[in-house]
Amino acid sequence: MSKKFAVCLVSGGMDSTVSAAIAATKYDVAFLHISYGQRTQKRELKAFRQIADFYNVEKRLEITLSHFKEIGGSALTDSSIKVPEGKLSGSSEIPITYVPFRNAHFLSVAVSWAEIIGANYIYIGATEVDYSGYPDCRGEFIEAFNKVIELGTKPETHIKIVAPLLRYKKSDVVKKGLELNVPFDLTWSCYQDEDVACGRCESCLLRLKGFKEAGVKDPIKYKERQI
Amino acid sequence: MSKKFAVCLVSGGMDSTVSAAIAATKYDVAFLHISYGQRTQKRELKAFRQIADFYNVEKRLEITLSHFKEIGGSALTDSSIKVPEGKLSGSSEIPITYVPFRNAHFLSVAVSWAEIIGANYIYIGATEVDYSGYPDCRGEFIEAFNKVIELGTKPETHIKIVAPLLRYKKSDVVKKGLELNVPFDLTWSCYQDEDVACGRCESCLLRLKGFKEAGVKDPIKYKERQI
Repeated sequence: MSKKFAVCLVSGGMDSTVSAAIAATKYDVAFLHISYGQRTQKRELKAFRQIADFYNVEKRLEITLSHFKEIGGSALTDSSIKVPEGKLSGSSEIPITYVPFRNAHFLSVAVSWAEIIGANYIYIGATEVDYSGYPDCRGEFIEAFNKVIELGTKPETHIKIVAPLLRYKKSDVVKKGLELNVPFDLTWSCYQDEDVACGRCESCLLRLKGFKEAGVKDPIKYKERQI
Repeated sequence: MSKKFAVCLVSGGMDSTVSAAIAATKYDVAFLHISYGQRTQKRELKAFRQIADFYNVEKRLEITLSHFKEIGGSALTDSSIKVPEGKLSGSSEIPITYVPFRNAHFLSVAVSWAEIIGANYIYIGATEVDYSGYPDCRGEFIEAFNKVIELGTKPETHIKIVAPLLRYKKSDVVKKGLELNVPFDLTWSCYQDEDVACGRCESCLLRLKGFKEAGVKDPIKYKERQI
């Protein structure tokens, strides 16, 4: 590739897809998907592939991390812990869906791949507004990780993490996605179901709130809509 | 456990074993081993288990990371790239055995596990003297990673990486190990063979140089000893 290019972390959810869509307006893009034993990993992988097809992305990498299940401690990767329903967490508490230090693993994979393929940027859909209270989604975490990349890779390697949605409210993510014609119908956000989105877990609730505040209807189906 | 405890990254090599032995003088220890598709992973895992048995470690975690093989680009994980023999790299060049950003992955796994089990420290055998020139073994990398841990984990989580050998020459590692009765005969350092250590790869050469400078004989067997 002649122009600069970016590795985009694409989970299959709406934030990472809008983040990747923003990257694609500036750079050639390579898509990275990580399954980590989360409940909805099959559905998310399907979403990833459909989104990558939509954007005609040639350079793709699908990685599986099996160790989060062994480490446990999160409702997303430990089936003995129930996914909370029906309420949005305040940002002062860390919800039980927090997967310990997850984004450090994801960014590490992205950096290793970026270093080998010569990418200049890593796009991640982290947002610290309307977020789930995960400490590893905050801007200061990402800034600190940029320092780790600078020091932990080859001197000739220059990779920078970009989190374009960091200051976006969920409704701003929806609006930006509509502006860029993001295929929201292909994205998947539900934490607990793989057939029809539950509409009750915090991820569904945040998503529905975002669409409502943006004044548009979410194109995917839900079992139940409280919002 | 009542007293503070430490997660020790134990590859099965001499540095990580001496590092863990130092941790064991101060804290209860939990041992973490990571296979990442490296050539000698079976032999290293065997060494890990024997060393963990030697120290009567109850809390153990053996993790496999399959993605380094998919990402490639290193002689350690890509069998199409030959492991260099017969010379020690200067610290100004990054050798082909460099696995891109590897220690960030290892530390991330250690942090996730430490956060779940409530450990206070992570011990890593990184050394920046007599080392292989890997950027992710340097003190400044580890310091930067400590900042990432502070920002990317729960507010009540306090985990600090300790690299007790950072300023040790290889011969100092040997001396410290002898002082602590480290079972060097159980450790494995060779990058390319799993039966008898080759004595020619940079890891064997560094190890042999360390023992020679410490004035003691390495108890393991070699196919060939140039030093």
